[in-house]
Amino acid sequence: MRTLKLTIAYDGSRFVGWQRQAAGESIQALLERAFESLEGRPVTVHGAGRTDAGVHALAQVASVAVDVAHDTDTLQRALNAHLPNDIRIRAIDEVPSDFHARFSARRKTYRYLLRTAPFESPFERRFVWHIREPLDVPQMQRAAATICGTHDFAAFRSAGSSVRTTTRTIFASGIDAQTGSVGPFDVIGGASLLAYEIEGDGFLRHMVRAIVGTLVEIGRGWRDSESMSLLLAGGVRAQAGATAPPHGLYLVRVDYD
Amino acid sequence: MRTLKLTIAYDGSRFVGWQRQAAGESIQALLERAFESLEGRPVTVHGAGRTDAGVHALAQVASVAVDVAHDTDTLQRALNAHLPNDIRIRAIDEVPSDFHARFSARRKTYRYLLRTAPFESPFERRFVWHIREPLDVPQMQRAAATICGTHDFAAFRSAGSSVRTTTRTIFASGIDAQTGSVGPFDVIGGASLLAYEIEGDGFLRHMVRAIVGTLVEIGRGWRDSESMSLLLAGGVRAQAGATAPPHGLYLVRVDYD
Repeated sequence: MRTLKLTIAYDGSRFVGWQRQAAGESIQALLERAFESLEGRPVTVHGAGRTDAGVHALAQVASVAVDVAHDTDTLQRALNAHLPNDIRIRAIDEVPSDFHARFSARRKTYRYLLRTAPFESPFERRFVWHIREPLDVPQMQRAAATICGTHDFAAFRSAGSSVRTTTRTIFASGIDAQTGSVGPFDVIGGASLLAYEIEGDGFLRHMVRAIVGTLVEIGRGWRDSESMSLLLAGGVRAQAGATAPPHGLYLVRVDYD
Repeated sequence: MRTLKLTIAYDGSRFVGWQRQAAGESIQALLERAFESLEGRPVTVHGAGRTDAGVHALAQVASVAVDVAHDTDTLQRALNAHLPNDIRIRAIDEVPSDFHARFSARRKTYRYLLRTAPFESPFERRFVWHIREPLDVPQMQRAAATICGTHDFAAFRSAGSSVRTTTRTIFASGIDAQTGSVGPFDVIGGASLLAYEIEGDGFLRHMVRAIVGTLVEIGRGWRDSESMSLLLAGGVRAQAGATAPPHGLYLVRVDYD
């Protein structure tokens, strides 16, 4: 038995999410099917984070225990040949047998992209949240900075989710404002692209999207930037902003010891 | 009656092309349907160039004669509300009644994106031609430069197409090699993104894709860079390279007097 660490990129647009579901295609199920075809028996692939339907990953991490004898380069090519082209394995590494993508993870980084422009670029419609009205970016940046540190994120968890504790430590939280196009698709001239990035020791379900939704309400002037600190000091879900749509969210990195 | 000039961006992935067809959705038909809903009668929209199935546009230009009374800003919003989100009208301008998007066009610019990398990014699969093997970029750049000027492009036209003349004048033809990701989707580290751009007074059907296919064969070392000049001095289609896939091609600009 070997334990492998997979680094995976996917365009989450058409999936029900990372996790296997009764109906619809999941990234986990497609990876397990690809491994099964090589291994000749059912295989379980454990992901570091359960991204929701429509959420993307630049570098999701997963672990799997297999017997298949191929070297990692051959295995990567074989698996990618089995997978649809909206999922790609970027790297495979041999790891000790006690490595577990979820339980061994120390930090995760998410990025959320949003663009304020009079109309939405056809090339960004699956990848960037489009907002028609201009946003007060400095106010949003002030509020984003207050998220750093250890806080109770009860106000930002998905309704109905149950976890032991809602306290998490955030190491970085900031908004980078760029102008110009996403790559070569220069459709919206000087419109501002905002990239919110957050790094923490763990995240509650829908937490990043609830934070982004709240930041956008601050940017719209619907609430002031101090409201973020108040929510972190014992708020409830109903007091925070609406959940931002999934298609702007990316799992960017998972760190291990 | 007013004549309007439309500037349009579209992700061509799911369309049969610009032009109305017996089966399948076309950009032209969807624009005509959007106008019809405002105008209350059938309307013909004339495009500057007939992009093929899968080909994108950053700024296709079209002309239309209508009676509808809305100001251009209101009209743009109303049409965009009718159109699917993979087609966006970027601008509407009032123009003289003798303006015709195709016949009045003086120059067109196309861009073709390709990436050499060990695997394809899920975020680029609809927008960039992925080539696994490294390419000899300086050789391709030398060959691309020889295309400038007035030449007979018979070797680069689609088999079976009939036009009066296959002579065209090219004002610019060059390859820009960049490293890094397309926008924020940093999936393929140092892999090279090649952007071929060509500006001319007109283009034969499949001409840009046949040129790119030939440039790639030069980059692979299958033919030398001088073969481009020979093809331009009276070659036939069978001697040029294979037609590059449509999804890397963009109509970037159409110029008028």
